[in-house]
Amino acid sequence: MSRPSTSSPADQSPADLEFVRGEGTLLFDADGNDYLHACGNAATIGHSHPRVVDAVSTQAALLFTHTGYLNRVVLDCSDALVDTFPASLDRAVFTSGSSAANDLALRMARAATTAKGIIVTRNARHGVTTETAAISPSLVGLAGLAGWVRVVGAPTGDGSTFVEAVAAAAVELRDSEYGFAGLIVDPAFSSDGAISPSLLSRADGGPAESFLASAADAVRAAGGLVIADEARSGFGRLGDGMWGFEHHGFVPDIVSLGEQVANGMPGGCVVTTTTIADAFAPKGLDSVAFGDSLVSLAAARAVLDTIRDENLAPNIKSVGDYLRFGIALLASAHPSVGEIRGSGLNLGIEIVGADSTPDETRASAIVAELLRRHILVGTTGLAHNVMEIAPPLTFGIPEADRLLEQLHGALLATATPT
Amino acid sequence: MSRPSTSSPADQSPADLEFVRGEGTLLFDADGNDYLHACGNAATIGHSHPRVVDAVSTQAALLFTHTGYLNRVVLDCSDALVDTFPASLDRAVFTSGSSAANDLALRMARAATTAKGIIVTRNARHGVTTETAAISPSLVGLAGLAGWVRVVGAPTGDGSTFVEAVAAAAVELRDSEYGFAGLIVDPAFSSDGAISPSLLSRADGGPAESFLASAADAVRAAGGLVIADEARSGFGRLGDGMWGFEHHGFVPDIVSLGEQVANGMPGGCVVTTTTIADAFAPKGLDSVAFGDSLVSLAAARAVLDTIRDENLAPNIKSVGDYLRFGIALLASAHPSVGEIRGSGLNLGIEIVGADSTPDETRASAIVAELLRRHILVGTTGLAHNVMEIAPPLTFGIPEADRLLEQLHGALLATATPT
Repeated sequence: MSRPSTSSPADQSPADLEFVRGEGTLLFDADGNDYLHACGNAATIGHSHPRVVDAVSTQAALLFTHTGYLNRVVLDCSDALVDTFPASLDRAVFTSGSSAANDLALRMARAATTAKGIIVTRNARHGVTTETAAISPSLVGLAGLAGWVRVVGAPTGDGSTFVEAVAAAAVELRDSEYGFAGLIVDPAFSSDGAISPSLLSRADGGPAESFLASAADAVRAAGGLVIADEARSGFGRLGDGMWGFEHHGFVPDIVSLGEQVANGMPGGCVVTTTTIADAFAPKGLDSVAFGDSLVSLAAARAVLDTIRDENLAPNIKSVGDYLRFGIALLASAHPSVGEIRGSGLNLGIEIVGADSTPDETRASAIVAELLRRHILVGTTGLAHNVMEIAPPLTFGIPEADRLLEQLHGALLATATPT
Repeated sequence: MSRPSTSSPADQSPADLEFVRGEGTLLFDADGNDYLHACGNAATIGHSHPRVVDAVSTQAALLFTHTGYLNRVVLDCSDALVDTFPASLDRAVFTSGSSAANDLALRMARAATTAKGIIVTRNARHGVTTETAAISPSLVGLAGLAGWVRVVGAPTGDGSTFVEAVAAAAVELRDSEYGFAGLIVDPAFSSDGAISPSLLSRADGGPAESFLASAADAVRAAGGLVIADEARSGFGRLGDGMWGFEHHGFVPDIVSLGEQVANGMPGGCVVTTTTIADAFAPKGLDSVAFGDSLVSLAAARAVLDTIRDENLAPNIKSVGDYLRFGIALLASAHPSVGEIRGSGLNLGIEIVGADSTPDETRASAIVAELLRRHILVGTTGLAHNVMEIAPPLTFGIPEADRLLEQLHGALLATATPT
């Protein structure tokens, strides 16, 4: 493996940076300069959180192989995690990462439905195994998708077009040679550009509900299951409820989690119903077979305990609202800021040109300028023009102020004179 | 997740045991009783080896998320690992585990050959992702294999039948709708019953070579690649050379490694040629995308350094030979011991009935009796009648003596009076 080893400050890109230490929301280079890790969502409760470091070090000194034997660490972590889910989702299987979790979720959905067809969103990214890459148009393009994949556009407007597209694809797959296994969707729509939910009237006259809840109804009407890929949206990030599906007011059949489970250590999890778990493994699930690790599970337990003990949920909501308000103020002075999307500590800032069309070039320039200002953010969305803010959940008002100040500067520095 | 929480000593099975601590070749239960972990191969240099614990704890306190940025830990570990391979295998990509590594190896082989068909051995086990389960008859049965999989029987006798079967399957796949991507094989044939290699005369009159080297020639003649799944056979376990393919005297095109890389932490790796890596990722491989972790890589570096500094290679060979000799002595007194297979610290003891046919029942009884005697071994092979010994590589003469003494006792205790 080789990477560029030198760079000049003028053309510095994230691939050239080397960080040697992390602490909370900050990464540090070898010279001790700190960078605000505003896209550091994998470090759920902050880089090298002392409770996680203690848990990892203590467990590593005790026992850190997956052993194939019963272990209290696995059982306790499973119980603590399942306790945060609705009662129907009562079975947890730990994996080595988010790709492995989504891959296992697909295997379970297929075992339960005896069907193969899967619906994904237009710019979905669900993993790098053969099967999860084949449902990830953002990685392999539309041409690289498997024959049993159907793509629906990311939600726009009130989301009703999205619901109709899901319903049509579900019926089409159901009647195809593949059969219909289900929809897999990130409730934060992060790779699709951090789409926010909106409420739709129900056809049956019931109370208005999220477009994603309506889409889930359509999936089930066609015999499919709903897989929520909560690798991004989990652990309260969206600001209301522990899981992204709560934000949308529905309960999925299968939930997959990624490295956020273990604060960035290798780890993931599938949480599902007893019925689906038993359809997949009639003789019982053996979590060990899926590459979990006692060390990562010790980290996972520390994450769950810390979110509870430090009461992070109100922080996520209040800091997220503060940040959104600050960005809205900037938008009034900077016409290149289009839609402000997302919620909680998962925000998307659309960058647009004079005619309100996506401006990828400008978005890249702003991100590069922010990097020079020691703020790390990414871009996302099909047109690569949505700046993505998804920091550790311990991100506070001081960090939000630092981000807003530098974003203001970066918007000014990259503006084309008119 | 739930597991049985109580058991009586009489019907104790590995699934009921809880180990709370590991040290070297031993696991300890909550009462402080030690068990010899003679099947603990994931803990390459022994459970909670101090150098690995130090590396894990130190790195966790510094930085333990995968960051998407350059990091010296990744580059150094990659360089140290690649240095142990033949010059042609010069690219390493780290993953979150053995399943992910084999899955990535398949993706690479297919990118390089633009073909899909894969040959596997009869009782192969290569992983639990959708794609790797579909090439693992030991997990999904012959009926569960994908249409593009061809199965060859495990080698027997001098291996010539195996070579012929590989050659025929390669040509058949090449001429099929799938095309021929390659052969994936565990050089230790561990799930197939720890088959030992033997030498075959070469058709061209050259020096005799391992049947696996001959099979590799046949694979390449049909346009395919050879993937060596070294999750078991790596790190010198077979007693001659660092990698299992050296034991067979050939160089594969792609090598996959599992959790042994990181002493049992979640981790894996694919090592391949620049040509194949570039065919898979023309824009360059980004190891971060495959779920590696700085903490696991720190552990991996400690494993490589320890194998070198503690000079474990001669120990593997000498203790393995000692153990094999001791088992052969037991065999002379116990007709239920059939073939003694494998080499180094990867041995298989075939258990047979009066007519030399596989005796799964007796093998299970011996394993259960050994568990009561605090020795942990497994069974393997298509007929589940091969006892498998694959301990940490620090297994020494005292541990071998303890194993042999208890094996003698277990063979006596389970013998049927004649």
